[in-house]
Amino acid sequence: MRATDFIEQKKLNKEHSKEDIRDFIMSYVAGQLPDYQVSAWLMAVTLNGMSEKETANLTDIMASSGDINDLSEFKYSVDKHSTGGVGDKTSLVLAPLLATLGATVAKMSGRGLGHTGGTVDKLEAIPNFRVALSDSEFMQQAKDISLVITGQSKDLAPADGKLYALRDATATVQSLPLIASSIMSKKLAGGAKSIVLDVKVGSGAFMKTIEEARALANAMISIGEHNGRNVKAVLTNMEEPLGFAIGNALEVNEAMATLKGNGPEDLTELCITLAAQVLAAAGIDTSKDEIAETLNSAKAYKKFEAWVKAQGGDVIALDSLELAEQKYDLVAEKSGYISKLDALSFGNAVKVLGGGRATKEDEIDLGVGVTLHKKIADRVEQGESLLTIYHNHRGFEDALAIVEDAIEISSEPIKLAKLILEVL
Amino acid sequence: MRATDFIEQKKLNKEHSKEDIRDFIMSYVAGQLPDYQVSAWLMAVTLNGMSEKETANLTDIMASSGDINDLSEFKYSVDKHSTGGVGDKTSLVLAPLLATLGATVAKMSGRGLGHTGGTVDKLEAIPNFRVALSDSEFMQQAKDISLVITGQSKDLAPADGKLYALRDATATVQSLPLIASSIMSKKLAGGAKSIVLDVKVGSGAFMKTIEEARALANAMISIGEHNGRNVKAVLTNMEEPLGFAIGNALEVNEAMATLKGNGPEDLTELCITLAAQVLAAAGIDTSKDEIAETLNSAKAYKKFEAWVKAQGGDVIALDSLELAEQKYDLVAEKSGYISKLDALSFGNAVKVLGGGRATKEDEIDLGVGVTLHKKIADRVEQGESLLTIYHNHRGFEDALAIVEDAIEISSEPIKLAKLILEVL
Repeated sequence: MRATDFIEQKKLNKEHSKEDIRDFIMSYVAGQLPDYQVSAWLMAVTLNGMSEKETANLTDIMASSGDINDLSEFKYSVDKHSTGGVGDKTSLVLAPLLATLGATVAKMSGRGLGHTGGTVDKLEAIPNFRVALSDSEFMQQAKDISLVITGQSKDLAPADGKLYALRDATATVQSLPLIASSIMSKKLAGGAKSIVLDVKVGSGAFMKTIEEARALANAMISIGEHNGRNVKAVLTNMEEPLGFAIGNALEVNEAMATLKGNGPEDLTELCITLAAQVLAAAGIDTSKDEIAETLNSAKAYKKFEAWVKAQGGDVIALDSLELAEQKYDLVAEKSGYISKLDALSFGNAVKVLGGGRATKEDEIDLGVGVTLHKKIADRVEQGESLLTIYHNHRGFEDALAIVEDAIEISSEPIKLAKLILEVL
Repeated sequence: MRATDFIEQKKLNKEHSKEDIRDFIMSYVAGQLPDYQVSAWLMAVTLNGMSEKETANLTDIMASSGDINDLSEFKYSVDKHSTGGVGDKTSLVLAPLLATLGATVAKMSGRGLGHTGGTVDKLEAIPNFRVALSDSEFMQQAKDISLVITGQSKDLAPADGKLYALRDATATVQSLPLIASSIMSKKLAGGAKSIVLDVKVGSGAFMKTIEEARALANAMISIGEHNGRNVKAVLTNMEEPLGFAIGNALEVNEAMATLKGNGPEDLTELCITLAAQVLAAAGIDTSKDEIAETLNSAKAYKKFEAWVKAQGGDVIALDSLELAEQKYDLVAEKSGYISKLDALSFGNAVKVLGGGRATKEDEIDLGVGVTLHKKIADRVEQGESLLTIYHNHRGFEDALAIVEDAIEISSEPIKLAKLILEVL
């Protein structure tokens, strides 16, 4: 089929065959199709949509456009994906938790960009932790301790990177089948049999309403099912940061506390829910009580230590990760109830302090960040500390202005919003 | 406004401001905007449409992207546009007819491509006729005899050429506002105050149904009115060729006969209708009877001779234009009534004989063509000649096969379809 006929087909809202999608996408990846034909097609997809079958086929083809992680030897390979939150250190807790409970977590993870952090950056806050493993090291560690996370070394789903850059320049980012296929192409290439998706909803998230989030979750579940994966999704509130800590080293500390059963309530609840879903999807029989007990007994923390050791990290240093030396406490100007802690603003504040990247090339300062002392609905008295900023002077004034704007105190009590909105 | 925001606006089906359209289109013409952003926008326009105001603004900006013919010194400047037909020699009749009746016809005309002929090609069938006039020759002749047609020398609406090439490669040709703005941008740049549009409907035309044709006509009328022009449109049947002659020299002969009042019924009716519409639009008071009389008295033919003379053509040679030497008569295999004379096929047959172009660079043979002896609904007896093919051997067998397939004879009488379907 000629490229113009393929574009015409989607313009007329007809369904593409898998063979035609493959020809079009693989020609593009091979540099044989001009950007202008692909962008016209992307706009037609954005406006006319794609069927579940088309979306599943597109995703499979994107996943197959590069390397595929072969995890078939692991019966209970599991993976988690978050659509991106602030203070989201879930992977650091969930990975050892799942490995403790019988699953294999062998994943490649990215670095942070914009207002959200990346798991690989957080792990680098642990002295000597190696995030660039060879293929054989990766597979051996998965066999040895059922737990390994490395930086993305392989060329997973290169079609996605190429399409995403074009979508960014042509106002075709906001398309449900394109968003879903972009995320899931990397998950399919990542190789895990069972996947849980944490779809964030709210001001700090990509999806602003529960309806949008539910539609995205269902689209990703459908893609997974069409491609032989077990997929579960949890819709979670992202109005305020998750837990109390935002910033790389601070978040590792909070993750470790959670792995010992001493974590913030919201983070703990989220990790238990995600673990329960993906373990059930994988066919591992367990209960929420058993998962909670795995945290409270610090069994999961032991797995974390084994993981740090396996990747060369300094286990002794875990008790005293290096934080920025300057601390500043922001105090409440009046008494009342916290009514707003804007997640996006906290992400931006930490980025301004040097803890995040504006461009892929930026070096980041792993010790800076913010620790909240109050969360939404908490009572606060005038003069009491709301949060501590850890900084090394850089960007401090700007970050302070951002967080001051991000907080609101109401004289009336506030009803606490639910964290787990829906399980699909 | 950034290009991505402009594309986003149309994706969300919002209305563009004229300033934003100007920035986008003129950046593209200047080579400052990549094709892939423009093609995404073209697809959004194709699927979401444009308002009348947006379409009028886009057309004005496209017209202003290059040279503009300044005809403001002529009070009754008129122009005609046809969406393309087979055997359509209307311009050759209409131009002298309108000039005789007090209007000024000063237009640039294109060469033919595909199955339709071009006025400039037809004029070249007249020995020594000059179709490449200088600007000053063009303006002087318009003043002297109110009638001049030259090949397109100026760079009229270059934005249209650039956009059309991109549309052709991205399945965005079939969009009402884009088709209407493409045609009208060249008409606006052409400079005439009053314009009549001959929108063809049927198997041999771009618009296959009367509804499509009416929508296109109304869109073009709206564009004209928004831009201070008087625009009329006539929807005409294009199931069979117009008149009896198809092929450059053959069509000039038929045009001359029509200018003397001896033309085919359909061609004569069409020319009178188009003339009445555009003269009324221009504010010249006349009647259909008066127009018919101008043909019957051969006054219009006198103007044609003056025109040929003014552009250097050999007036003596008009009685004996050079035709192809080989003639072949196709005879009827059975008696009956002509039920089909597929216009598109006749256009293609003449192209195959060498009378039309497949690419812009092709040289054409001006003497080849087809003369029909019967039209739809005519009675024919077995063995009677249906048509004569004028050829120089080249492509003859193929052309014969095409025309044989293009004709159907029915045993039942056929109801003659109306030529003029609607006047808007």
